[in-house]
Order: sequence, then C-alpha cells, then structure tokens
Amino acid sequence: MAKVKKAPRPKAQAPKGFRDYLGAEVTERAEMLQKIAGVYHRYGFDALESSAVETVEALGKFLPDVDRPNEGVFAWQEDETADWLALRYDLTAPLARVYAQNRNELPTPYRRYAMGPVWRNEKPGPGRYRQFYQCDADTVGAGSVAADAEICAMLSDTLEVVGIERGDYIVRINNRKVLNGVMEVCGIAGDDKADERGIVLRAIDKLDRLGENGVRALLGEGRKDESGDYTKGAGLSDAQADIVMGFMSAKRDSGAATAARLSELVAGSKVGEEGVNELLTIAELLEAQGYGPDRIEIDPSVVRGLGYYTGPVFEAELTFEIQDEKGRPRNFGSVAGGGRYDDLVKRFTGQEVPATGVSIGVDRLLAALRMKGRVENHAAGPVVVTVMDKGRMADYQSMVSELRNVGIRAEVYLGNPKNFGNQLKYADKRNSPIAIIEGGDEKEKGVIQIKDLILGAKIAESATLEEWKDRPSQYEVPRGDLVAKVREILESQE
Amino acid sequence: MAKVKKAPRPKAQAPKGFRDYLGAEVTERAEMLQKIAGVYHRYGFDALESSAVETVEALGKFLPDVDRPNEGVFAWQEDETADWLALRYDLTAPLARVYAQNRNELPTPYRRYAMGPVWRNEKPGPGRYRQFYQCDADTVGAGSVAADAEICAMLSDTLEVVGIERGDYIVRINNRKVLNGVMEVCGIAGDDKADERGIVLRAIDKLDRLGENGVRALLGEGRKDESGDYTKGAGLSDAQADIVMGFMSAKRDSGAATAARLSELVAGSKVGEEGVNELLTIAELLEAQGYGPDRIEIDPSVVRGLGYYTGPVFEAELTFEIQDEKGRPRNFGSVAGGGRYDDLVKRFTGQEVPATGVSIGVDRLLAALRMKGRVENHAAGPVVVTVMDKGRMADYQSMVSELRNVGIRAEVYLGNPKNFGNQLKYADKRNSPIAIIEGGDEKEKGVIQIKDLILGAKIAESATLEEWKDRPSQYEVPRGDLVAKVREILESQE
Repeated sequence: MAKVKKAPRPKAQAPKGFRDYLGAEVTERAEMLQKIAGVYHRYGFDALESSAVETVEALGKFLPDVDRPNEGVFAWQEDETADWLALRYDLTAPLARVYAQNRNELPTPYRRYAMGPVWRNEKPGPGRYRQFYQCDADTVGAGSVAADAEICAMLSDTLEVVGIERGDYIVRINNRKVLNGVMEVCGIAGDDKADERGIVLRAIDKLDRLGENGVRALLGEGRKDESGDYTKGAGLSDAQADIVMGFMSAKRDSGAATAARLSELVAGSKVGEEGVNELLTIAELLEAQGYGPDRIEIDPSVVRGLGYYTGPVFEAELTFEIQDEKGRPRNFGSVAGGGRYDDLVKRFTGQEVPATGVSIGVDRLLAALRMKGRVENHAAGPVVVTVMDKGRMADYQSMVSELRNVGIRAEVYLGNPKNFGNQLKYADKRNSPIAIIEGGDEKEKGVIQIKDLILGAKIAESATLEEWKDRPSQYEVPRGDLVAKVREILESQE
Repeated sequence: MAKVKKAPRPKAQAPKGFRDYLGAEVTERAEMLQKIAGVYHRYGFDALESSAVETVEALGKFLPDVDRPNEGVFAWQEDETADWLALRYDLTAPLARVYAQNRNELPTPYRRYAMGPVWRNEKPGPGRYRQFYQCDADTVGAGSVAADAEICAMLSDTLEVVGIERGDYIVRINNRKVLNGVMEVCGIAGDDKADERGIVLRAIDKLDRLGENGVRALLGEGRKDESGDYTKGAGLSDAQADIVMGFMSAKRDSGAATAARLSELVAGSKVGEEGVNELLTIAELLEAQGYGPDRIEIDPSVVRGLGYYTGPVFEAELTFEIQDEKGRPRNFGSVAGGGRYDDLVKRFTGQEVPATGVSIGVDRLLAALRMKGRVENHAAGPVVVTVMDKGRMADYQSMVSELRNVGIRAEVYLGNPKNFGNQLKYADKRNSPIAIIEGGDEKEKGVIQIKDLILGAKIAESATLEEWKDRPSQYEVPRGDLVAKVREILESQE
C-alpha cells in the first residue's frame, strides 16, 4: 500500500565499510564456530549472547583509536534526554556489564564464551570492515594466573581442532606488569604520565607495522606517516627509549632465559618482578600439561593495543608463509589475542573482579583455513527438477518432495520455464549435480530423463561432438526409479 | 593505562528494551536454528548473512508503526554530509538490496535463508524487545505462485522438524489481491485513497487484539484506546465496513467453499478474481504434495501488517492452548508469517522482480518448544576438579586435561580455594555432575575422591543423617582410574 513508486531510487549497496556474506561464506564460518564452541564447552565455558546495543557509558572508552570522533564506535541518541546508545565494539566490555548485572545469579568464577559481530567506526580499507565477527572466551572472577594459562592452552587446542596444525601456529605470552615495571624504571610510572604510557603502549603494539625506527620515533619526539599525518611521541630520552626497545627484544631461546633477561630489565620494580614471576608460573603450569614452547612461549614483544589489560597478555600467530599484496613472503600473522583485565568489572561495581580472556578474529582464522585447504566444500547445489509443462507443476513438486523426504537437496525450477536452456544455465549456476526432465513424451511413457551434470561437464571438456551426442551422462529411467537413480548418481559423484 | 577510576560509575544494565541470552538460552536456540537451516538447505535455499547496518534509504519505510519518530528504526548520521545509517528492522528489506546489488552473479530464482538479530525502535513492553531474532527464507525472481506454495510447504515441514506436532499448528494463506479486490468493491482503490487502504489493512491485522468492534471503529470514524490515545479511522460507511468485515469472516469449511465465498465478495474486481484464482492454484499444488487443510488452509482473516506485500500472504499459528497472564486459556498464536512482495527489488533496479518469503519469530517458536518439552536439556555442567592445595595447580590441571582429552566437559576450580564449601557451592551452581578431590592425604596414598553430585543431591533430599554420613555417593579410587570412574558415574546418571 505504501507509495513506493514515487520515492527516488535508492542505491543497491551495503554502506561503506560493510559487507554481506553469501552461501558457503556463511556455512563455513558456522561450521568453524561450532568446532570452536565444542572446545570451549569441553573446558567448562558457557555460552552468552549479549545485546548488540549498549549504553555508551557501559561500553567505556578503551579502543586504541582514541583520537577519532565518537571514539571509534557507532553511537546515537534518541533525543536530548535519552542515554547515548552504541553498537558494541568488542565482546569484552559487554561481558563486564553482563557479569556486573547478574553477579548474584552467576557462578564465580564465571567462564563464558561469546560469538558474534562487533562494530567499529573506523576508516574502512582493503580487508578492513566496520562490522566483523569475534569469538571470545573469558573467565571472570579468577585472579590466579592458572586462569590465564588455561585460556592459552584452550587457544592452542582450538587452533588445532579447527585445522591449524601444530608448528603452523604459536601462542605468545607477555605480561603488562613487566611493561609497567619497564615504565617504572624509565620514570614514567606516575599518575601524571598516563598519556606517555599510552603512547608507549601503542608504539610497541605497532612494531610489526612501523619497524624499529618508527617505534623509536613514537617513543621520542613523534612520527609523521606517509600521508603526512603527525602522531605525537612519548617524549622519552634516548636512554629511556633504549630500555623500552630492550624490553621488546628480550626474547631468548627458552622461557627461563627470557624471564631472566626480563628480570634484569625490571630490577628494582616490584610490579615488574611480580610480572616476571607470573610468566614463570604460567610457563610451569602449561609445561606440566604438555604445552611446550613449540606451542606456547613467552615473548616480550606482545603488548596488545587495548587500554584495559592489567596482567598477562597473549596472542596467537599463524607462522606459515603467505604472500603479501606485492608478492613478498610474510607470516600469516595474528588471529587471536587477549589478556587479563582486572579493572573492567570494577568500573560498574566498585569491587575488584579479576578477569582474563581471549578473542579470536573469526574472519582471519577462516581465511587461513581456506588457504590451507582445511574448509569442507559447502558449494554443492540441489538436484534441479526442470519444468517442461507449466500446467504440471504439481507433478514436478511431487518429485522434489520424494527426493527431500529421503534427505536429498532438491528443488523445482521456479523461473520462467519457456526457455529450457535458461533452466540448464540456472542448474549450472547453482552447481547442481543432477537435472531431471519430464516432458510430455516422457510423461506418456512413464519415464523421466536424469542428467548427470558433473559427468556431463567433464565430458563436455574433453569429448568429441560424436561422443557428446551419445549423451552417456543422461539416463532414461521409469518414473518410479527417480530416487534410486538419483542416489546412485550422487554416490558415483563423491 | 586509561584513567578508569576517575570516571563516574556506569549502570550495569542493558539499555531499556534490550536483553542478554545466557547459557542454555543460546545453545537451545542455536540447535533449533540448525534444524531449521537443515530443512531450508534441503529445499535448495542458500545461506545469506547481510550487513546489520544499512543506509536508511536502502531500508525504505515499510514498518507498520509509521507514526513513530525515526520510523521505528535505530538510525544515526556520522556528520551532516554522510548517509543516514540504520540497523536493519527485518531481513527482507536487506535481501532486496543484496539481490539488486548482486543480481548479475546470483542465480535467478535466488532462494536464500537468513538468520540473525533485527532491531526495532519501538516502545519496549513485557516480552517485547527492541532486538530479536528472525529466521527467514525467500525466493527472489519467481513470479509463479508455485514459489508461494513451496514456502508454505517448507514452513509446515520446518515446524514439524523442530518439534511441533501435526495438529498443533496451522499455516494460513490469504491473498492481498483479494483484499485489494474488496477495497475496489468498497470504492477505495484510487491513488488518492492510499491512506484509507493503509488504515483498513492495519485494522484487519488487529482483529485478534481489538475484536470485531475495535476493528469496526477503525474502519469507520476512528478509535480511542484504553490509554486515551486516538487512532484515526478509514472513514468507511457502514455498508463499506460490512464488506470488509464479510471478507474477514469468509472462511468456510473447505478451501473451495472459502474461495467461492471470496469470489462473491470481489465479483467484478479483476484483481480480486485473480487473487482468488491464485489461492485455488496454491491449494491444488499443496494438495498434490499431500499438504491438506489439516496443515495449510485458506483463511481470509490473515493480512499481515507490513506495507510491502502484493500477493499471497501467510502465517503459521500454533493452535495448542496456553494460559494468558490472567490464567485464561488462549491459543499460543502466530510464530511465523510472510508473503509475496513483488515491488521491493524494483525500488532499486526499476525492473519488476517478483519475490516471496517467510519469517519465523525465533524467540516465540523456541518458547513454544520449551512449553511442549521439546527442547533438549543443555544445562549439564562440567566435572569440577577442586583445589585442595594451591601449590599443586599443575596436578589438578592434568586431571582436567585427561578428562577433556576423552571428550568429558571438565574444569579446575579457579576461584579462591581457601573455603572448600565455596568450591562445592560453585559446583552446585554449575550443575556439575561430579566433583574430584585430591588433598595431601590422597596424594600421598595415590588416590582421589570422586563425588557423585547428582546421586548426592538425591540422597540429601530423602536420607537420614546416618545414611548421609555413610557417603554412598563418594568413591575413593586410584588416581589412575580417574577417567574410567568418571565415565562410569556419568553413564549411571543418564
């Protein structure tokens, strides 16, 4: 009833930076997430799906890109008296809110996993979208680093269960407390130096992208990027910057050696020494369960960009080689990260509630699995029953009913049936394995034609015209043999 | 690093009208959706997950509540030059956009299913949320009513597959063309009467809620509701209103008799007669596949509120009885609806693209399954390994590793282990079937204690103190028998 025709024609496009997932993209992801949920479940984690919309005050301001308008989130206000609402930018901030809201009913520790889209109001770029999937597992209310160790072990198991082989990934652990110790030794531990610490943190997190010189520039005066944009530096002296750079390159061959080197760097800082001890404990716990440094290792270059981490931080990197857009080899890179954030629930309740967790970048992990050929082919189309006589739709519907009733994916061609070629083109576009034909002649004789489209395509590629005319990929069978013959062909195609 | 402490304490609450789903609520829904996807897949439908965010112009304005600010959607604008963006309010408008955007690559007809949250900026109320799940299946590019019949058959199959028994539901079909014929007969078919037609449409859709008198008021002068709010009427004369009311009560015992009655009502209206013929064709097609009026029937009282329908409309109602909030018996009611919307894609492309589809109200269907006891119990908790000696975390972690490695859900207690009672309370809150205990004495003797918590709870309910003291639900076994004994107990609990 709406006056549709008078409206100007809208653009048929997803908003800039947003995308759609079609067909196998959806089902392959669903299958991967189901495997991940299986691991999380076995570890005792329960599912949570929180509201996609939160109040801006509940979300807090923890995104790395603090300089952008709206703090990197999509936010709106109904009217001037209403709360500002926003789409969640991750699954951690909402977890803190949910736990605080339900703390009397939930068990403590509360282990939960969550899977779903998050939204970031960032500049879109190639492969960088404003809506993407995350898959998180967190333990709230467990202060012991045994909880962090468990998350790392689970992350390792998860990667193997979805299809990343041992040796193709590494889980790296570091500790913000060690970094805080380094900051203390550098003399930027005070309340008045929070901005400087934030700059140092973000600079370290960009080592991969900016290289050593870029990071040094950010630790010192600041850095102008290729576009001419200037990023303010932390203003550290060369000597101070040396300590920070030394921290990032403190990794040694064994966890013990790395810890020893870190101990030297934070000597005299209580929080720093505590951090080193925690790392040692985590390494011991993992070692006892058989997770050696081939799977999980201490690496001081891991810091994670988010502002809310307070202790151990971790990251899973896929170490197999791919080619970048210019054809140069590089590691696939990070697919998951997380850490301990003891203050996030306290924002709501005023009470300390320790928490730790991990977030998997779903799209990246799925891309990696595709590259490694570890994703099942979900593109198999339905058997297509063609329409030779528009007046006999009921006959064709009965055929698909019979096929579906025994679990075979099948459909009637529902487009305009006039042009038979279009029906076969359609079957082709659907990746159909088989087409069924029942014209007037067949109907009279009580038979149907069954076309093996997979074999047909193979023959078409290599056969001569004569061979093709023999139609060895098409069979005439009694109508009553429909299901049996389709089954036989499907089995031969496997 | 962020200065968390100085911020005012945020409220730990989901925004008004939004909610979270915890634990079994998430997994039960996922399981139901997986079953539904299985049916859709078998019918040849492919998955689609479109962006949650659309431009406001792409979404269009088709919601029933046209009078509310923002037209019932959550919308925002980044700055004055940017497009208005909005959260999708259903999965149909985005489908039209996706099809228009990808029409050269997609097969035609394009059968797709989609599952996910949608958002409506409506007044929240009891059981009425501003974010809820939908699960849709649509066929784009098929003008034949065979596509509508297929959707209705699939809806019927879907309800039975998830666990609604035949006889507990009915799929009702009507046709907007018949209604348009009625409007023509009433003399409100002209372009200048679009507002009146909209009011008539919404009035009919409210028959359930408002009763016959309420609808009559809306067809005539208008209606004041209990709160005093006034809704404008369509201004029909009594004679005109009689025709509309006659349409709504045109249902007879058989589809043929109903169609005959409808033919009388729309006599002389071309579109009306076309609509009746379409209904007859749909009924024939369904009948031929064995879907009789015990499952799918013609019912003229179904109109659906949305503005974009142009032909057949359908609705699935669960017919078993429940009690309303005042204890009065009533039918469970509608769980799915849909119809043909031939103009929705045309908005983008200018070309006619016929389409039809159905949307299942996921939360309502799941609620119905719970009432009927058709939802598997997903609340089984993990085996909990308690912590008797904080220094031996590695030992306890090894136990859970062993259990998980054979697929048993298990976890170490990660809270503060000081108070052992708290650990058992935790296991209770988790619905744990079994708790494992290994104190210093046990460690020395090479044994562990295994507590059957399900049996223990049963005994606690009925046993005397003496029986309870005998602890028949607790077993001491060699450490090496951990997995075997846990398995044995779990099996005995099934």
